[in-house]
Amino acid sequence: MEMIAKTPEVPYYAVIFTSVKNEGYHEYSEMAAKLVAKAQKQEGFLGLESARNEIGITVSYWKDLDSIEKWKNDIEHISAVELGKEKFYKNYRVRIAKVEIEFGKKD
Amino acid sequence: MEMIAKTPEVPYYAVIFTSVKNEGYHEYSEMAAKLVAKAQKQEGFLGLESARNEIGITVSYWKDLDSIEKWKNDIEHISAVELGKEKFYKNYRVRIAKVEIEFGKKD
Repeated sequence: MEMIAKTPEVPYYAVIFTSVKNEGYHEYSEMAAKLVAKAQKQEGFLGLESARNEIGITVSYWKDLDSIEKWKNDIEHISAVELGKEKFYKNYRVRIAKVEIEFGKKD
Repeated sequence: MEMIAKTPEVPYYAVIFTSVKNEGYHEYSEMAAKLVAKAQKQEGFLGLESARNEIGITVSYWKDLDSIEKWKNDIEHISAVELGKEKFYKNYRVRIAKVEIEFGKKD
Protein backbone atom coordinates (compact mmCIF):
# COMPACT_ATOMS: atom_id res chain seq x y z
CA MET A 1 0.00 0.00 0.00
CA GLU A 2 1.23 3.45 -0.92
CA MET A 3 1.99 5.61 2.09
CA ILE A 4 2.22 9.32 2.74
CA ALA A 5 5.86 10.43 2.53
CA LYS A 6 7.62 11.24 5.79
CA THR A 7 9.41 14.43 4.86
CA PRO A 8 11.80 16.49 7.02
CA GLU A 9 11.39 20.05 8.28
CA VAL A 10 10.69 22.62 5.57
CA PRO A 11 12.10 23.95 3.30
CA TYR A 12 12.62 21.14 0.79
CA TYR A 13 11.49 20.62 -2.82
CA ALA A 14 8.61 18.82 -4.53
CA VAL A 15 8.43 17.64 -8.13
CA ILE A 16 4.75 17.41 -9.08
CA PHE A 17 4.33 15.21 -12.16
CA THR A 18 0.78 15.20 -13.57
CA SER A 19 -0.06 13.09 -16.62
CA VAL A 20 -2.76 11.71 -18.86
CA LYS A 21 -1.76 8.39 -20.42
CA ASN A 22 -2.33 7.15 -23.92
CA GLU A 23 -4.15 3.81 -24.03
CA GLY A 24 -2.56 0.43 -24.61
CA TYR A 25 1.00 0.62 -23.37
CA HIS A 26 1.40 -2.28 -21.00
CA GLU A 27 5.11 -1.68 -20.52
CA TYR A 28 4.27 1.60 -18.79
CA SER A 29 4.10 0.27 -15.21
CA GLU A 30 7.44 -1.50 -15.62
CA MET A 31 9.07 1.75 -16.79
CA ALA A 32 7.43 3.73 -13.97
CA ALA A 33 8.57 1.22 -11.31
CA LYS A 34 12.13 1.42 -12.69
CA LEU A 35 12.13 5.23 -12.49
CA VAL A 36 10.81 5.16 -8.93
CA ALA A 37 13.46 2.62 -7.85
CA LYS A 38 16.10 4.83 -9.44
CA ALA A 39 14.86 7.99 -7.72
CA GLN A 40 14.91 6.24 -4.34
CA LYS A 41 18.64 5.57 -4.73
CA GLN A 42 19.42 9.16 -5.70
CA GLU A 43 21.14 11.46 -3.22
CA GLY A 44 18.73 14.01 -1.76
CA PHE A 45 15.60 11.91 -2.39
CA LEU A 46 13.14 12.32 0.51
CA GLY A 47 10.03 10.39 -0.51
CA LEU A 48 7.35 9.80 -3.13
CA GLU A 49 3.55 9.72 -3.33
CA SER A 50 1.58 8.49 -6.32
CA ALA A 51 -2.07 8.04 -7.31
CA ARG A 52 -3.84 7.48 -10.63
CA ASN A 53 -7.33 7.26 -12.00
CA GLU A 54 -8.38 9.61 -14.86
CA ILE A 55 -5.10 11.44 -14.42
CA GLY A 56 -1.93 10.37 -12.66
CA ILE A 57 -0.20 12.48 -10.02
CA THR A 58 3.24 11.57 -8.70
CA VAL A 59 4.90 13.88 -6.21
CA SER A 60 8.54 13.22 -5.32
CA TYR A 61 10.28 15.15 -2.56
CA TRP A 62 13.90 16.26 -2.66
CA LYS A 63 16.42 17.95 -0.43
CA ASP A 64 17.23 20.75 -2.88
CA LEU A 65 17.18 21.84 -6.54
CA ASP A 66 20.64 20.38 -7.05
CA SER A 67 19.41 16.86 -6.18
CA ILE A 68 16.54 17.26 -8.66
CA GLU A 69 18.92 18.51 -11.34
CA LYS A 70 21.21 15.49 -10.86
CA TRP A 71 18.24 13.15 -11.11
CA LYS A 72 17.04 14.89 -14.30
CA ASN A 73 20.47 14.56 -15.82
CA ASP A 74 20.67 10.87 -15.14
CA ILE A 75 20.97 9.36 -18.62
CA GLU A 76 18.67 6.42 -18.08
CA HIS A 77 16.05 8.69 -16.60
CA ILE A 78 16.20 11.10 -19.50
CA SER A 79 15.85 8.32 -22.06
CA ALA A 80 12.81 6.92 -20.22
CA VAL A 81 11.24 10.35 -20.06
CA GLU A 82 11.88 10.84 -23.76
CA LEU A 83 10.24 7.49 -24.37
CA GLY A 84 7.29 8.66 -22.30
CA LYS A 85 6.97 11.87 -24.26
CA GLU A 86 6.68 9.89 -27.48
CA LYS A 87 4.16 7.25 -26.55
CA PHE A 88 3.08 6.81 -22.95
CA TYR A 89 1.63 10.23 -22.32
CA LYS A 90 -1.12 12.12 -24.10
CA ASN A 91 0.07 15.10 -22.10
CA TYR A 92 1.92 15.86 -18.90
CA ARG A 93 3.21 18.70 -16.74
CA VAL A 94 6.22 18.80 -14.46
CA ARG A 95 6.19 21.44 -11.72
CA ILE A 96 9.14 21.98 -9.42
CA ALA A 97 8.21 23.75 -6.20
CA LYS A 98 9.80 24.77 -2.92
CA VAL A 99 7.78 23.46 0.05
CA GLU A 100 7.52 26.25 2.61
CA ILE A 101 4.74 25.05 4.96
CA GLU A 102 3.72 21.54 6.05
CA PHE A 103 1.10 20.29 8.49
CA GLY A 104 -1.36 17.42 8.90
CA LYS A 105 -2.47 14.38 10.84
CA LYS A 106 -0.18 11.40 11.31
CA ASP A 107 -0.99 7.78 12.17
CA MET B 1 -12.78 13.58 -17.06
CA GLU B 2 -10.21 15.27 -14.87
CA MET B 3 -7.75 17.42 -16.80
CA ILE B 4 -4.30 18.77 -16.19
CA ALA B 5 -4.51 22.32 -14.82
CA LYS B 6 -3.62 25.16 -17.18
CA THR B 7 -1.49 27.31 -14.91
CA PRO B 8 0.11 30.70 -15.72
CA GLU B 9 3.79 31.62 -15.87
CA VAL B 10 5.75 30.76 -12.72
CA PRO B 11 5.97 31.70 -9.91
CA TYR B 12 2.67 30.69 -8.34
CA TYR B 13 1.74 28.40 -5.43
CA ALA B 14 0.67 24.77 -5.07
CA VAL B 15 -1.19 23.19 -2.15
CA ILE B 16 -0.39 19.47 -2.18
CA PHE B 17 -2.97 17.57 -0.13
CA THR B 18 -2.14 13.88 0.36
CA SER B 19 -4.48 11.63 2.34
CA VAL B 20 -5.37 8.10 3.37
CA LYS B 21 -9.10 7.69 3.99
CA ASN B 22 -10.85 5.76 6.69
CA GLU B 23 -13.34 3.24 5.35
CA GLY B 24 -17.09 3.68 5.20
CA TYR B 25 -17.79 7.39 4.92
CA HIS B 26 -20.06 7.76 1.93
CA GLU B 27 -20.61 11.44 2.50
CA TYR B 28 -16.93 12.03 1.73
CA SER B 29 -17.29 12.63 -2.02
CA GLU B 30 -20.08 15.14 -1.43
CA MET B 31 -17.90 17.08 1.03
CA ALA B 32 -14.91 16.94 -1.35
CA ALA B 33 -16.99 18.19 -4.30
CA LYS B 34 -18.30 21.05 -2.17
CA LEU B 35 -14.77 22.09 -1.17
CA VAL B 36 -13.59 21.96 -4.78
CA ALA B 37 -16.55 24.09 -5.95
CA LYS B 38 -15.74 26.56 -3.18
CA ALA B 39 -12.04 26.75 -4.07
CA GLN B 40 -12.90 27.41 -7.72
CA LYS B 41 -14.83 30.54 -6.74
CA GLN B 42 -12.02 31.87 -4.53
CA GLU B 43 -9.90 34.80 -5.71
CA GLY B 44 -6.46 33.68 -6.82
CA PHE B 45 -7.50 30.09 -7.59
CA LEU B 46 -5.65 28.84 -10.70
CA GLY B 47 -6.60 25.18 -11.07
CA LEU B 48 -6.87 21.77 -9.45
CA GLU B 49 -5.74 18.22 -10.17
CA SER B 50 -6.90 15.16 -8.23
CA ALA B 51 -6.33 11.39 -8.28
CA ARG B 52 -7.02 8.60 -5.80
CA ASN B 53 -6.37 4.91 -5.40
CA GLU B 54 -4.54 3.65 -2.27
CA ILE B 55 -3.83 7.27 -1.36
CA GLY B 56 -5.45 10.45 -2.59
CA ILE B 57 -3.51 13.38 -3.99
CA THR B 58 -5.18 16.72 -4.71
CA VAL B 59 -3.03 19.60 -5.91
CA SER B 60 -4.63 23.03 -6.09
CA TYR B 61 -2.81 25.98 -7.65
CA TRP B 62 -3.00 29.55 -6.39
CA LYS B 63 -1.78 32.99 -7.36
CA ASP B 64 -0.04 33.66 -4.03
CA LEU B 65 0.14 32.76 -0.32
CA ASP B 66 -2.44 35.40 0.47
CA SER B 67 -5.07 33.66 -1.70
CA ILE B 68 -4.32 30.36 0.07
CA GLU B 69 -4.57 32.01 3.47
CA LYS B 70 -7.97 33.49 2.59
CA TRP B 71 -9.20 30.10 1.43
CA LYS B 72 -7.94 28.46 4.63
CA ASN B 73 -9.71 31.05 6.72
CA ASP B 74 -13.00 30.51 5.02
CA ILE B 75 -15.32 29.34 7.78
CA GLU B 76 -17.12 26.65 5.85
CA HIS B 77 -13.81 25.28 4.58
CA ILE B 78 -12.31 25.15 8.06
CA SER B 79 -15.33 23.34 9.48
CA ALA B 80 -15.20 20.79 6.66
CA VAL B 81 -11.50 20.24 7.19
CA GLU B 82 -12.08 19.79 10.92
CA LEU B 83 -14.75 17.27 10.06
CA GLY B 84 -12.26 15.48 7.84
CA LYS B 85 -9.67 15.40 10.61
CA GLU B 86 -12.12 13.65 12.88
CA LYS B 87 -13.48 10.94 10.65
CA PHE B 88 -12.71 10.96 6.94
CA TYR B 89 -8.94 10.68 7.07
CA LYS B 90 -6.71 8.10 8.70
CA ASN B 91 -3.92 10.54 8.04
CA TYR B 92 -3.12 13.43 5.73
CA ARG B 93 -0.46 16.00 4.93
CA VAL B 94 -0.83 19.50 3.52
CA ARG B 95 2.22 20.98 1.83
CA ILE B 96 2.26 24.54 0.54
CA ALA B 97 4.92 25.12 -2.09
CA LYS B 98 6.07 27.87 -4.44
CA VAL B 99 6.22 26.61 -8.04
CA GLU B 100 9.44 27.88 -9.60
CA ILE B 101 9.78 25.75 -12.77
CA GLU B 102 7.18 24.26 -15.11
CA PHE B 103 7.45 22.30 -18.34
CA GLY B 104 5.69 19.44 -20.17
CA LYS B 105 3.71 18.25 -23.14
CA LYS B 106 0.34 19.77 -23.98
CA ASP B 107 -2.52 18.38 -26.09
